[in-house]
Amino acid sequence: MERNITRPIWFDEKSQSIKVIDQRFLPHELIVADLRDVDDVINALKKMYVRGAPLIGATGALGVYAVFLQDIKKACSNSYLEKECERLKAARPTAVNLAFGVDYVLNEVVKHETIEQRVKTCLERALRLVESEVENCRKIGENGFPIIKKISDKKKGRPVNILTHCNAGWLACIEYGTATAPIYNAFEKGIDLHVWVDETRPLNQGSRLTAWELLQRKVSHTVIADNAGGHLMQHGKVDIVIVGTDRTTRAGDVANKIGTYLKALAAKACNIPFYVALPSSTFDWEIRDGLASIPIEERSADEVRYVQGKDDNGSITTVLVPPGDSPALNPAFDVTPASLVTGFITERGVCRASEKDIIDLFPEKA
Amino acid sequence: MERNITRPIWFDEKSQSIKVIDQRFLPHELIVADLRDVDDVINALKKMYVRGAPLIGATGALGVYAVFLQDIKKACSNSYLEKECERLKAARPTAVNLAFGVDYVLNEVVKHETIEQRVKTCLERALRLVESEVENCRKIGENGFPIIKKISDKKKGRPVNILTHCNAGWLACIEYGTATAPIYNAFEKGIDLHVWVDETRPLNQGSRLTAWELLQRKVSHTVIADNAGGHLMQHGKVDIVIVGTDRTTRAGDVANKIGTYLKALAAKACNIPFYVALPSSTFDWEIRDGLASIPIEERSADEVRYVQGKDDNGSITTVLVPPGDSPALNPAFDVTPASLVTGFITERGVCRASEKDIIDLFPEKA
Repeated sequence: MERNITRPIWFDEKSQSIKVIDQRFLPHELIVADLRDVDDVINALKKMYVRGAPLIGATGALGVYAVFLQDIKKACSNSYLEKECERLKAARPTAVNLAFGVDYVLNEVVKHETIEQRVKTCLERALRLVESEVENCRKIGENGFPIIKKISDKKKGRPVNILTHCNAGWLACIEYGTATAPIYNAFEKGIDLHVWVDETRPLNQGSRLTAWELLQRKVSHTVIADNAGGHLMQHGKVDIVIVGTDRTTRAGDVANKIGTYLKALAAKACNIPFYVALPSSTFDWEIRDGLASIPIEERSADEVRYVQGKDDNGSITTVLVPPGDSPALNPAFDVTPASLVTGFITERGVCRASEKDIIDLFPEKA
Repeated sequence: MERNITRPIWFDEKSQSIKVIDQRFLPHELIVADLRDVDDVINALKKMYVRGAPLIGATGALGVYAVFLQDIKKACSNSYLEKECERLKAARPTAVNLAFGVDYVLNEVVKHETIEQRVKTCLERALRLVESEVENCRKIGENGFPIIKKISDKKKGRPVNILTHCNAGWLACIEYGTATAPIYNAFEKGIDLHVWVDETRPLNQGSRLTAWELLQRKVSHTVIADNAGGHLMQHGKVDIVIVGTDRTTRAGDVANKIGTYLKALAAKACNIPFYVALPSSTFDWEIRDGLASIPIEERSADEVRYVQGKDDNGSITTVLVPPGDSPALNPAFDVTPASLVTGFITERGVCRASEKDIIDLFPEKA
């Protein structure tokens, strides 16, 4: 186990490998994996060592460097490089950040011809993307802070109850997180707050990762079954919902972890603000209708059927819950229509969930 | 392990004990427990050997007989009998059927004075309640059948997709179930149907019990995370939702397993019929506003934190999912307002979810 890790991904000069936290074993074990070729990167993406839109983008960007790590000579051929990049992009089809991260590096690398220039450009460009994600998350935190502050002022010192779904924290987003960035920002500024952590079945990213993150930073939180959020909202125990997103259309339809839609419906019914925090790289400017246009990744049924945790002996164990002969279905995301979203918190500012308001904030995408 | 079990509760003359399936170990082990005194019955209720409104009622009824089993002499004192019955009723405060079942027997027993009469009356009355639950469920199945048939006719032979939450099947309701009664009835009449089984966190009654039941009767089904239902509804993959209830007000507000409210919101948003199947004993005729008047049982946080299943060695094991230091909250039920309910399927017939329509069906409660 390595110590003092504050990021989920970095490039290690000494071993010439991409290092990532293998998040599958959190919160019970902190394991760091070495990625040395494209297959390693694809495996880490597919098996979800890494997950969350910004981290997937960063992994895609550094994944291009894995083409050089595996065969520096072949990587000088654009056709080889592009073919390997296509393989990378196919590893997680719903995550728009993956293609963005890969192309961000690839499009620059192919401009250069010498090995030296291509290698140097590739790594620089990938690391620049990583740093820009960190900076975006920092700004999302600053831009989201006033929303929480305003609720806190209204509550006159009683804690602000924030519900979040899945993990859009630093484990997903490299340093501050997206959905968690305003939470960490407000917490550091002394706002009294408490986070309801949806466990987020089937992979339990909430109970495993978000709870772990919040625990590390000593933020008050409570894990709940995904089923409980509506009830808490009905009884005034949720002041605001903040979630991340894997892809959001220019009209404001939000693809995020399965179950997000149900929380958005409840927030609307209970008149609770529902915010989506995202770096602008997560917008898909090409599409409007999220329900019709965003392909929803269907993952292995075994993710529903088996649950991983720590057993009585302290070992990481997987248990089968339903009968062995019962089939399961595992759609990984759903789409929340813009009409259920109060607003977006981006690195550039906050806007309402309509195409007009989004484009007002990002006029270059008009 | 006993064989050929078709009910979750019965009285065994030979051993003079109440027998129940200890449902905590399903679907992986079928264990039958002997209840010989009131503490056994309270334990079985609290630890959820038995669960589901009608079975809880039947357990309450036979629980009164446990007062005689533990001390036949003392049970001749009304004050002792009533005190023990109060203890029984307190074991599951949200379930209106528990108090109903206990009182159904108690109110008759206290009319008699001799030991012989009291013992005989107690058992007869308890068994009468059990048989009436079975008969009610049979009728719920018959009354719900036309609703499924109509959808099937519209779909011209394509399977009817029914979503259900928790377990309101024969394990909960003694023989046909409530929510499952129309499903079993339609299935037996040859309707092509498929059931989406919400796993129903935190105790997984869907993936453990409903899936097991449906598997036994060879009904086509698929287990899904509770988070997935909204997405399936958005994409036209759910034709009808049928759930049970633990307590429903005279105005039609429905207390049921936590998460039911979220499915009702999605069904409304997607224009999908949302039915609640219940014997009339589950109506609480005394109250109207479910949100204000139904106390919601808060169960142990460990039910959220730990998940039970079968490990690689075939043993029933419990694993901890979130960090050991993260707290959890476990509200067991929520309330779905009548405005989200399409209708009720009862032993007397089907009605819409308004006080007027309910009272039209049960005019004696006007």
